[in-house]
Amino acid sequence: MTRFALTVEYDGRPFMGWQRQDHGPSVQQSIEEAAFAITGERTAVHAAGRTDAGVHATAMRAHLDIAKPIAAFRLSEALNARLRPNPVAILACEEVADDWHARFSCTGRSYEYRIINRRAPLTWEKGLAWQIAQPLDEAAMHEAAQLLIGQHDFTTFRSAHCQSASPVKTLNKLDVLREDDLVMVIAQARSFLHHQVRSMVGCLAMVGLGRWSVADMGDALLAADRARLGLNAPPDGLFFMGASYPPTTDGR
Amino acid sequence: MTRFALTVEYDGRPFMGWQRQDHGPSVQQSIEEAAFAITGERTAVHAAGRTDAGVHATAMRAHLDIAKPIAAFRLSEALNARLRPNPVAILACEEVADDWHARFSCTGRSYEYRIINRRAPLTWEKGLAWQIAQPLDEAAMHEAAQLLIGQHDFTTFRSAHCQSASPVKTLNKLDVLREDDLVMVIAQARSFLHHQVRSMVGCLAMVGLGRWSVADMGDALLAADRARLGLNAPPDGLFFMGASYPPTTDGR
Repeated sequence: MTRFALTVEYDGRPFMGWQRQDHGPSVQQSIEEAAFAITGERTAVHAAGRTDAGVHATAMRAHLDIAKPIAAFRLSEALNARLRPNPVAILACEEVADDWHARFSCTGRSYEYRIINRRAPLTWEKGLAWQIAQPLDEAAMHEAAQLLIGQHDFTTFRSAHCQSASPVKTLNKLDVLREDDLVMVIAQARSFLHHQVRSMVGCLAMVGLGRWSVADMGDALLAADRARLGLNAPPDGLFFMGASYPPTTDGR
Repeated sequence: MTRFALTVEYDGRPFMGWQRQDHGPSVQQSIEEAAFAITGERTAVHAAGRTDAGVHATAMRAHLDIAKPIAAFRLSEALNARLRPNPVAILACEEVADDWHARFSCTGRSYEYRIINRRAPLTWEKGLAWQIAQPLDEAAMHEAAQLLIGQHDFTTFRSAHCQSASPVKTLNKLDVLREDDLVMVIAQARSFLHHQVRSMVGCLAMVGLGRWSVADMGDALLAADRARLGLNAPPDGLFFMGASYPPTTDGR
């Protein structure tokens, strides 16, 4: 048995999310089926983050175990060939130690949320960004974002379906940047609650639109009450950007 | 009659190109039909560049004449509403002088060609970039590109269907830049021959792959012979980025 770590890019639009679902296609299932077609083995693919329906990844990390001898490069090429026409691409594949786990060994996750701030509808970025027609004040958004940095009870920003044992998480980074029409929110933490990034971005948009003050963001956090959520941003603009691992278990 | 100048973004994937065609949808037709639905007038929409099937635009300039009184902002909003679900967006709309012509007044056009240089297939960029799996030497590509700058007979880089009176054009800029996996070619000229950018990019790719030397590019240009073309790049990666106009006739 060899464990392989994968770096995976995917377009979330046609999927019910990362995780296998009975009612529709998932990224996990598409990779598992590609691996089965190559090896004849039923193997589970574990990811650093289980993204929701419509959420994308530029560099999801995942792993799978294969009994049949196969070189990492050949596995990667064969997976990419079998994954067509699904919009899922294996960017990298390498052998790792048997105890390396894409989810449990992961010590940091980063997301980017893309807002296109213009009146005109989206063309090729439809489903790949959140279009907001009214002008956003990105400086106020960034200021409000800084109130969320650190260790907090993030209940306000947590889905009712969240399975995490505790609502307490430590947010390391939440930056809001503008490049012309594009307003980007960059979030980094060891781990996130279900819907946490989208909920934080939704509330930042409230601040950017002037419907919330910067102080309203602090109040919403302190309330630790889901009913105080301003807005949950749509999945379209969310990208899983990368996961980090301790160097000794990364295998690289 | 009022003349309006438009700035148009579009995803070229579903279209036969800018220009009206009997055998399939075009960007021009979609805007003309939207305008007809608003005004009841059959008006022609003229563009700075007639892009091919599958070619995109971030800022195509175009104009149309409307007899019915309508404010530029209302026209823009109404066009965007009527253009759905076509991936065409009016980014800007303004009144211009009656003799301002999107094509004939235009004094500069700029294109960007996007190559994604990686083994893995494309996901959300499929149809929006040219994937080249073998490593490209972008420095050699840039060096070869500089041989094309200036006034030349570009017959080698011209489609057999080109309707231009002369194959002589003046290329002002042809830069090749890399940002990680993305290799971008930026081209600027007063005007281009049909397929000129794609043909130049195709030959630059030959240089980048080491199949052509830098000198081969110079030889191909001097030959002024379409049979010497190395490769015509696919439309996927080509974006019309903008058009410039003399300030006095721009209307802005």
